[in-house]
Amino acid sequence: MSKILVLHGPNLNLLGTREPGVYGRVTLGDINARLQTAAAARGAELRILQSNHEGVLIDAIQAAAGWADGILINPGGLTHTSVALRDALSGVGLPTVEAHLSNIYAREPFRHHSYVSAVCVGTLAGFGWRSYLLGLAGLLDHLDG
Amino acid sequence: MSKILVLHGPNLNLLGTREPGVYGRVTLGDINARLQTAAAARGAELRILQSNHEGVLIDAIQAAAGWADGILINPGGLTHTSVALRDALSGVGLPTVEAHLSNIYAREPFRHHSYVSAVCVGTLAGFGWRSYLLGLAGLLDHLDG
Amino acid sequence: MSKILVLHGPNLNLLGTREPGVYGRVTLGDINARLQTAAAARGAELRILQSNHEGVLIDAIQAAAGWADGILINPGGLTHTSVALRDALSGVGLPTVEAHLSNIYAREPFRHHSYVSAVCVGTLAGFGWRSYLLGLAGLLDHLDG
Amino acid sequence: MSKILVLHGPNLNLLGTREPGVYGRVTLGDINARLQTAAAARGAELRILQSNHEGVLIDAIQAAAGWADGILINPGGLTHTSVALRDALSGVGLPTVEAHLSNIYAREPFRHHSYVSAVCVGTLAGFGWRSYLLGLAGLLDHLDG
Amino acid sequence: MSKILVLHGPNLNLLGTREPGVYGRVTLGDINARLQTAAAARGAELRILQSNHEGVLIDAIQAAAGWADGILINPGGLTHTSVALRDALSGVGLPTVEAHLSNIYAREPFRHHSYVSAVCVGTLAGFGWRSYLLGLAGLLDHLDG
Amino acid sequence: MSKILVLHGPNLNLLGTREPGVYGRVTLGDINARLQTAAAARGAELRILQSNHEGVLIDAIQAAAGWADGILINPGGLTHTSVALRDALSGVGLPTVEAHLSNIYAREPFRHHSYVSAVCVGTLAGFGWRSYLLGLAGLLDHLDG
Amino acid sequence: MSKILVLHGPNLNLLGTREPGVYGRVTLGDINARLQTAAAARGAELRILQSNHEGVLIDAIQAAAGWADGILINPGGLTHTSVALRDALSGVGLPTVEAHLSNIYAREPFRHHSYVSAVCVGTLAGFGWRSYLLGLAGLLDHLDG
Amino acid sequence: MSKILVLHGPNLNLLGTREPGVYGRVTLGDINARLQTAAAARGAELRILQSNHEGVLIDAIQAAAGWADGILINPGGLTHTSVALRDALSGVGLPTVEAHLSNIYAREPFRHHSYVSAVCVGTLAGFGWRSYLLGLAGLLDHLDG
Amino acid sequence: MSKILVLHGPNLNLLGTREPGVYGRVTLGDINARLQTAAAARGAELRILQSNHEGVLIDAIQAAAGWADGILINPGGLTHTSVALRDALSGVGLPTVEAHLSNIYAREPFRHHSYVSAVCVGTLAGFGWRSYLLGLAGLLDHLDG
Amino acid sequence: MSKILVLHGPNLNLLGTREPGVYGRVTLGDINARLQTAAAARGAELRILQSNHEGVLIDAIQAAAGWADGILINPGGLTHTSVALRDALSGVGLPTVEAHLSNIYAREPFRHHSYVSAVCVGTLAGFGWRSYLLGLAGLLDHLDG
Amino acid sequence: MSKILVLHGPNLNLLGTREPGVYGRVTLGDINARLQTAAAARGAELRILQSNHEGVLIDAIQAAAGWADGILINPGGLTHTSVALRDALSGVGLPTVEAHLSNIYAREPFRHHSYVSAVCVGTLAGFGWRSYLLGLAGLLDHLDG
Amino acid sequence: MSKILVLHGPNLNLLGTREPGVYGRVTLGDINARLQTAAAARGAELRILQSNHEGVLIDAIQAAAGWADGILINPGGLTHTSVALRDALSGVGLPTVEAHLSNIYAREPFRHHSYVSAVCVGTLAGFGWRSYLLGLAGLLDHLDG
Repeated sequence: MSKILVLHGPNLNLLGTREPGVYGRVTLGDINARLQTAAAARGAELRILQSNHEGVLIDAIQAAAGWADGILINPGGLTHTSVALRDALSGVGLPTVEAHLSNIYAREPFRHHSYVSAVCVGTLAGFGWRSYLLGLAGLLDHLDG
Repeated sequence: MSKILVLHGPNLNLLGTREPGVYGRVTLGDINARLQTAAAARGAELRILQSNHEGVLIDAIQAAAGWADGILINPGGLTHTSVALRDALSGVGLPTVEAHLSNIYAREPFRHHSYVSAVCVGTLAGFGWRSYLLGLAGLLDHLDG
Repeated sequence: MSKILVLHGPNLNLLGTREPGVYGRVTLGDINARLQTAAAARGAELRILQSNHEGVLIDAIQAAAGWADGILINPGGLTHTSVALRDALSGVGLPTVEAHLSNIYAREPFRHHSYVSAVCVGTLAGFGWRSYLLGLAGLLDHLDG
Repeated sequence: MSKILVLHGPNLNLLGTREPGVYGRVTLGDINARLQTAAAARGAELRILQSNHEGVLIDAIQAAAGWADGILINPGGLTHTSVALRDALSGVGLPTVEAHLSNIYAREPFRHHSYVSAVCVGTLAGFGWRSYLLGLAGLLDHLDG
Repeated sequence: MSKILVLHGPNLNLLGTREPGVYGRVTLGDINARLQTAAAARGAELRILQSNHEGVLIDAIQAAAGWADGILINPGGLTHTSVALRDALSGVGLPTVEAHLSNIYAREPFRHHSYVSAVCVGTLAGFGWRSYLLGLAGLLDHLDG
Repeated sequence: MSKILVLHGPNLNLLGTREPGVYGRVTLGDINARLQTAAAARGAELRILQSNHEGVLIDAIQAAAGWADGILINPGGLTHTSVALRDALSGVGLPTVEAHLSNIYAREPFRHHSYVSAVCVGTLAGFGWRSYLLGLAGLLDHLDG
Repeated sequence: MSKILVLHGPNLNLLGTREPGVYGRVTLGDINARLQTAAAARGAELRILQSNHEGVLIDAIQAAAGWADGILINPGGLTHTSVALRDALSGVGLPTVEAHLSNIYAREPFRHHSYVSAVCVGTLAGFGWRSYLLGLAGLLDHLDG
Repeated sequence: MSKILVLHGPNLNLLGTREPGVYGRVTLGDINARLQTAAAARGAELRILQSNHEGVLIDAIQAAAGWADGILINPGGLTHTSVALRDALSGVGLPTVEAHLSNIYAREPFRHHSYVSAVCVGTLAGFGWRSYLLGLAGLLDHLDG
Repeated sequence: MSKILVLHGPNLNLLGTREPGVYGRVTLGDINARLQTAAAARGAELRILQSNHEGVLIDAIQAAAGWADGILINPGGLTHTSVALRDALSGVGLPTVEAHLSNIYAREPFRHHSYVSAVCVGTLAGFGWRSYLLGLAGLLDHLDG
Repeated sequence: MSKILVLHGPNLNLLGTREPGVYGRVTLGDINARLQTAAAARGAELRILQSNHEGVLIDAIQAAAGWADGILINPGGLTHTSVALRDALSGVGLPTVEAHLSNIYAREPFRHHSYVSAVCVGTLAGFGWRSYLLGLAGLLDHLDG
Repeated sequence: MSKILVLHGPNLNLLGTREPGVYGRVTLGDINARLQTAAAARGAELRILQSNHEGVLIDAIQAAAGWADGILINPGGLTHTSVALRDALSGVGLPTVEAHLSNIYAREPFRHHSYVSAVCVGTLAGFGWRSYLLGLAGLLDHLDG
Repeated sequence: MSKILVLHGPNLNLLGTREPGVYGRVTLGDINARLQTAAAARGAELRILQSNHEGVLIDAIQAAAGWADGILINPGGLTHTSVALRDALSGVGLPTVEAHLSNIYAREPFRHHSYVSAVCVGTLAGFGWRSYLLGLAGLLDHLDG
């Protein structure tokens, strides 16, 4: 039974209220519920955390080394600026999948580069809340594979 | 019943023989079979084409405007160099998903930029052959709306 | 009666002691008092927060969506590095004014770019502590409209 | 009693007719009247000039060395291209404030750099016609010391 | 009956004497005569101005808002350096065509970028004095269109 | 009697259906008919080819060395990416005019550079379908000239 | 008797477990013990803190102004991204030495630039855990003066 | 007995007619004859193909995996733009030598970079038609070596 | 007897009053007198003009084609921004020497590039008012030579 | 007993006289004496060489392969420009430490990059003459293992 | 009978001992012997020099103007940094061939650019010691040609 | 009586034979004789050295600190690549003038930047052998001044 840490970075708690033209009206609670359902169907267990604090996310990644088999992360705005987050992921060495709601490659240029991608198993973007479900599936497949 | 054009760009016919350390040992035939199975389970119909010729791929995209509901594409090396391919996709206006086997963001810098991403619904990379299955799922979900 | 969140980013609590040749000898307490006086004269209400933690600032911005009419912010060093802060501001969508004590365009090149400016109503720099008063005036004028 | 030169650069005479979606409907005459009112309230005297000619603006800056205590300038498009204007300002050495109607940092990249900012006391942008009033206030405050 | 402002930027009065290997031996007077003939044949009226002064060109563009239906401009060396000229054109909002005698894309790299192109209907370069005639035709077609 | 090769690059066969907001509703057949009419009026003969294949376009350019007096080309997306197309044009050495329907300088940055311009007689962009007619006129004038 | 603040940035608590091929098998506890021994031999006193939170590190730097004579810091991934940390160090003005375990100049390009170096007395990298001891020696020598 | 695929990219069929000042008057037929003679003297067998189509070249490279011991290629203009060609070469993994007639490092800057060089055994440029003979010798030596 | 046009660009009329720490206390009148003396000693005739207007300088350069044998110019801030000035100089084709009072290569980076240098016989910088005398000597030598 | 080559690059013989504000008043002789003392205390033997000639330094590095256990080098200005020096160090393969007196990261940008760092065990800068002592200690520690 | 200067740049005397994984085990003496044999077979005479000193190499190039017909050079690390070497080669004007043992285009980015290539007849890289033999053949062919 | 060191960098001994189209037919001996004559007329004494060795030039600069009042230098190709030469000049602190025969700003881009200019009193280029005489005059004036 795979155990997965799901991490939501800064501002993702605003989902459903923030710029709905870009992000849609589904809330983070909705997404988490759908993730839990999908995980259950695959026999996996999820622990989910959202934080606006880089340090809290890093602490959680480090702690995951003690219990988790993989990480599903949407680092939000930290995607483009945080070497420390990248180091945490490469440091614990757990298979990680990076998921973005919006198509970051069709937005401002500073969103086209991710510090995190290069230390992940895979990355996906642009499917809205489905990015999480697809990312979870990809991560579980990888762990089975 | 959704109809999907699946396009494999240059050199993807080498899969299973080409640099297995990077791409694995699954052949393109294997992938296509798994895609057909997955499509059938979703009640979707696939037409699949691989070509090493940019022009052939563009012709196929244009022709898809007459019958397809969406496109799943791995443009291979053309990802990074072909504006014409991008124009074909934006010209026909069909919902498109871009999938890459390897994590292109962890490879040479010239592979970090895609001309195609910005005109796609979504993009994913790094899940090996599963990138195709996840991409197909994402595309069908998008079409279901 | 307009309600304004005033945010001071990292190291601004050092004002009056830190590099007085650049920043002068007025303390953050002095500035806050002058801001309160100016706000009272305009019939506005201020809530003021300083933090060295990016996450604390983001939390405060998000919470402001529930009570404030606008934000006056000096993001300090985060000005140049934090996409997450920018996302928080654009996410809550409150009219925001960005103020800097020093003329950031006359300092090191890395201080010439602000991630925050593009999502603000206006921005000002170089007036010392008066930047805050001018910024508050500009924000209240904007809200009056 | 402070004496201030107010300079409007190229195309600012079009205000109120030019791209109202960006610049609003207030004319340059309106702005000048409001500046005169504000100056009178502070006991300051203004001389105001608009020109589409870089050389005329430089001549005026040089002449100001003989009578003015400070300069309030919106260099318009010359902001981004004129070293000669910058040299005139640093040459006469009068305290100068740079004001822009629109938020230049949220527009095309070539508008993000100003040759003038680094030789000014302060700079502000994005408050519409109020940028001038705020800039005048900042300049007079600076002169009062 | 369309009324067109024709503007020749700095140094174009040297035509026929200046670097004939690059620009040919046709004088500006010759070109203007041919433009008048072509305009008459289309029932259009031209007013023609050459100046080496950026400010004079901007003044003329602004004045054209009162009488002209379109502008045909060869900004000469200002093409590559003048944001103020661009702002004048976008400010008055008249349909404008940009014409260059020489093929600027085959010359020094600093001539490959034009600040003006992006605010024009169309642009052409390299046809020698015929660039003006073709540009006039394109502009009149656009106005008719 | 001048003989001209007219080349339409990738995706131009979609004209009239593709992104009409950008390209209008005139079809490639319409344009070709108008070109034939205009050529006949000048006593010129046209052979017209559209292809989505870079190689087919290069083959046609090479073959033109045996019969044509000049080339009118809209390379479409290959404009920005094909050194081979440029080499074909400079290799056969026929006078060539480059025409673009849309104003490529007002679109994405990657469309601002053309590999082809520097080996052409002249280039024009932004006049819609009239770009072809103006380009043909410019080419025939050049050949007469 | 010199008092020194020793700061370990994000992920350094992982030492001994994280990427041992790069960082070796010595733990942060081991390093701290060796630092304490070395400090005692020099008659110096150390206070040591590790945190994954940028804000916590900044708070500690600011507080050090009240008791410490110098700072020895390994900012980890924040080295390359945090202007706020740099501002904290320059703000308190204590002599600071920057130490890195690995040779950051032999790793990824984004690790070659440090925001912190320019405000430090000295910097060293690549000596493994000995970087700390050497850095402490350098700092104490500097303080002795 | 070594078997070698010799590939000539776009426009090389023009040799002897195309820009003789740059490429000389030797035709591709001449070169192929000299290559066949040199191969015979070394006991090697050549199959030679020229194409203006990127896809045809890739197809040939892939097919060579079934019969050839090495590849000698002059990719022409594709040298600087084709990632797909590079991927084909690295995909089949045959020892490859890249040869250019002209000294590409003494020409336009966009010809100074080759996508192909990094996946070749060796590369040479500037010896005119002798580049092919030297390249063949180098390849056969490598295969013998 | 050589006839020379001496041109002083924007702000050089401020010499002796402007930033004396950088430019010294010699006025433009002083310099002109010294130039006249030196010219007389060489049997040359000078006509001298200072202007803050780019257009006036270009007009003067063009007019010089009718009477002058060479030009000595200090373009001031236009050095770094004016293609039109460069075009005027290359258009009239008179031998030109560029002189700067200060060492522009030891100042801000944007002063390190001159649009004018490449169309001049020679250039010198950093000798204060003597730069003019040395430049005049160099120009007269060139004309004699 | 470790044997160490100590290399001082160009201009380091000027120490104590050259720009004392930057480098202090300690001479190279002083430094060498302190290094000898420190080496003796560790039971190590030093051979010391200063040269202004790149070739002499490379010769010495190569010769060190025959007798030394490690190298301590301050390449001076060659740090930023010499690939040959780097190649010499990587060629002989002796453990090397790079030491700089001043904090090169706080000086001109062209001093921020070192060709040598990436082939060294460690590097340090900014401790004045103590950089050498710390570097020697670090090198001997490394050799001890 | 052709006379050729063969120059080996810095560190090439280490061949056979230096990084054999990259450069092989053939010594410079071996290579020189093979070159002498090949030259004799072609009736050519070689003079061979290796030096780690840029100045010695330049002296030799200049002296070659008095006796040699051509130069074969591997500038080693100076390839990427020495304008003086380039100037020596273009100054004496002897036909020159540049040869590299390793494929410099597959190594660090700073090795991808050569100052020397643009002033050579031809260049080759990646054939190991055979690069010299092929280069000598190419040079002699060129001299015969 | 001023004593001046005159330094000629690499390849300047070729003057009169090297690329006469660029550098003219005057030899270095001629130039030195003219310099001696001009120095004698000013009551100055010259010591002149040419070398192709960077180290020899640096040694001479350092030695000049013991006897010379100023330096006149043409660093040749080292102008663009040698930080060590710059450091020598700034280290000894003698007033220095940089002179170039050709107009380096009208040649290849890599010749547009000089490491030496920023540490010189003044710089001049393009006057042929007269650059030396003008530079000597400027240096002596500076020393007198």
